Amino acid sequence: MGIKSEETKNETNHALAKISRRKLLLGGAATAAVALVKSSFGEIQTAIPESLYIPADPTKVQGPPPFDLGTRSPFERPLKKTSDTSSRTPLQDLYGTITPADLHYERHHGGVPTIDPEKYELLIHGMVEKPMIFTLADLKRFPAFSRICFLECSGNFRTGKEEMMPQEIAGLTSQSEWTGVMLSTLFREVGIKSKASWFLAEGSDAAVMTRSIPLQKGLQDGMIVYAQNGEAIRPQQGYPARLFLPGWEGNTSVKWIRRIEVSDQPYMTREETSKYTEGIKGGKIRQFSFDMDARSIITYPAYPVILQQGWVEIRGIAWTGRGKIVKVEVSTDAGKTWNSAKLQGPVMDKAHTYFRYLWNWRGDETEILSRAIDETGYIQPTMKQLMEARGRDMGGYHLNPITAWRIKRDGTVLFRPEGKA
Amino acid sequence: MGIKSEETKNETNHALAKISRRKLLLGGAATAAVALVKSSFGEIQTAIPESLYIPADPTKVQGPPPFDLGTRSPFERPLKKTSDTSSRTPLQDLYGTITPADLHYERHHGGVPTIDPEKYELLIHGMVEKPMIFTLADLKRFPAFSRICFLECSGNFRTGKEEMMPQEIAGLTSQSEWTGVMLSTLFREVGIKSKASWFLAEGSDAAVMTRSIPLQKGLQDGMIVYAQNGEAIRPQQGYPARLFLPGWEGNTSVKWIRRIEVSDQPYMTREETSKYTEGIKGGKIRQFSFDMDARSIITYPAYPVILQQGWVEIRGIAWTGRGKIVKVEVSTDAGKTWNSAKLQGPVMDKAHTYFRYLWNWRGDETEILSRAIDETGYIQPTMKQLMEARGRDMGGYHLNPITAWRIKRDGTVLFRPEGKA
Repeated sequence: MGIKSEETKNETNHALAKISRRKLLLGGAATAAVALVKSSFGEIQTAIPESLYIPADPTKVQGPPPFDLGTRSPFERPLKKTSDTSSRTPLQDLYGTITPADLHYERHHGGVPTIDPEKYELLIHGMVEKPMIFTLADLKRFPAFSRICFLECSGNFRTGKEEMMPQEIAGLTSQSEWTGVMLSTLFREVGIKSKASWFLAEGSDAAVMTRSIPLQKGLQDGMIVYAQNGEAIRPQQGYPARLFLPGWEGNTSVKWIRRIEVSDQPYMTREETSKYTEGIKGGKIRQFSFDMDARSIITYPAYPVILQQGWVEIRGIAWTGRGKIVKVEVSTDAGKTWNSAKLQGPVMDKAHTYFRYLWNWRGDETEILSRAIDETGYIQPTMKQLMEARGRDMGGYHLNPITAWRIKRDGTVLFRPEGKA
Repeated sequence: MGIKSEETKNETNHALAKISRRKLLLGGAATAAVALVKSSFGEIQTAIPESLYIPADPTKVQGPPPFDLGTRSPFERPLKKTSDTSSRTPLQDLYGTITPADLHYERHHGGVPTIDPEKYELLIHGMVEKPMIFTLADLKRFPAFSRICFLECSGNFRTGKEEMMPQEIAGLTSQSEWTGVMLSTLFREVGIKSKASWFLAEGSDAAVMTRSIPLQKGLQDGMIVYAQNGEAIRPQQGYPARLFLPGWEGNTSVKWIRRIEVSDQPYMTREETSKYTEGIKGGKIRQFSFDMDARSIITYPAYPVILQQGWVEIRGIAWTGRGKIVKVEVSTDAGKTWNSAKLQGPVMDKAHTYFRYLWNWRGDETEILSRAIDETGYIQPTMKQLMEARGRDMGGYHLNPITAWRIKRDGTVLFRPEGKA
């Protein structure tokens, strides 16, 4: 790994530790040679500076003093898997349910705008008694509300080969504690007219992202959020403010929101006509399919883990846009029998729920699977069931099939790809 | 602020946005001149590169594509306030209850050790049937458990002047979702002997931090945690693994834990004899005062905010090491009358609980205060009550007095200092 591990003699020099720290902080910008390490998606990352000083006995070396901003260990380099339009949360590298803000998935239609919070404005107009413009300070002055919720892109499914990690299959879902103002509060300020039934949400990105949202959803639990996991929302998630619609497909939670126009009908924008619709049986197209259906994925063991024989805690996340997860079932015999996994409490509404199931793997080849059941009674379907229900031209949105991992005798764990790549 | 804000013509050049992003990512390391901005603790931070390109209309400029690792907005620079031995969470800059990992408070006794996770070992020995060494991989193989809890230093109180922020007064508390293995699971592996009643926890920092812990606490809810807010625990919080004792004074949750020795008596280490003890009445010293008592602090409005007249949502956090917060009361008339604040649910055991209270400030000079009440019936005391109960030599640990903010007619908000600085 290119790491120096030295004897402990003459190692109490604090200055030396400080130098190491500085090199470490500079990271990729340092002129020192850096080692390539095998990250979860290939030998690509500049990771541990070769000059990083790792004492054999850390008790013999005074460490650096407290940090203004904490850092990751140089041995930990979680990264999103990134394309031109999206980056995917490394689910297989995570524990618990909170997604660190810098690992939250991204899906943009015109890149990430840079917005001066002092100049930010949200206009609410249309079928309202009193059109109003809210600054960021205005939004923060209203009563605040916080909740822990997942956010998932409706295109969150990839398949096609055995060597796929949870991140690649389902990494377009993440979870944060979101804080902001309830949309109902803002709607009360502007006075919604009685005949209004929809609103348009418009972002200030280069795509001028627009979606039509039923007014009822906005009044029920819609928010304008300005904070994520305790701090200001990140630019990649909509800084300085975004719409947030718990449990609904991600793109309806319009980022960098600048305008809400209240209306009595939907606007039929590009992202709800030519995109973000899906085929159903009989050659028809389903539109305004907002709710994210119940889903789960085993994140451990999963590709590229090499499993050891003996007791294994199967772990994963389950979630549903329709309320709470009430049960996750795990099969370790390729779907013949199913057993209830433990759910980590508190189980929250429209939130990633951590599940665990203890299994003694005796070295036989098998498949492990999980399926989520939500409070509406909905059971996560197989890909076969999905295709039967939706028809052959179901497209790439709202695909939530059971994910199966094949365990080979040598401990190799491989994805069982199904459906169109 | 030194930020260029230009007209939108000729601004659709993606390359330009990319250059801006690169400059931005380099941050302080960039050669470009940087502006000084007024951060929450003075004009000290290198913040926004003068060359940062902020388009007047962000919809006219394609933004940078998704990030491998997200970033903060250049307009947001939360920082901990740091001394040689501690750094304090900027409570006044946060929203909700999760503390971003890089803003978690720090209090070290020998700096932050750098530990290779491949070489990490935890020894459990002493009054056990079978002494064992656990690697990090071993720890992760056991059944996992996650919970959201605060962690607070028992020395979390500062006073002395009016110009103090929440961060300075009470910034040695933070909250994370912690994931690890229950200590009871490891104790079952090694087989605790029947006469055992305490254990020693030893860190691998340069101070070789040691504390004696009643066995019962370890069995009840003690954990060895290796993850924080979804990812590997940070070096500043004990990477690769620390003890975590929910609700107990922070230093008992020994960071970088390398050894647990089971015993039938406490070890009387430095950190439980000459330090981390406190005076009580009659010239006596209280030892092993583990539980953190109920406390709250208003984080908005607080110094250095300048308040505007009209409706204000008073916000803050409340917490207790003895279970759940059941009520937070707010006074806006200097303690004459008290009203219940709203608690943000779900209220969790031994967790920061967000409270809010809507108040119409008419411009009169007053004081605002909050007091926490926990499920044991304990009511957060005033400094006067604390001094009466504990005596004059009560020292600097376990001080949880009600924090009062004085509002002046001009909107200035000042801390009302009490007790010894």
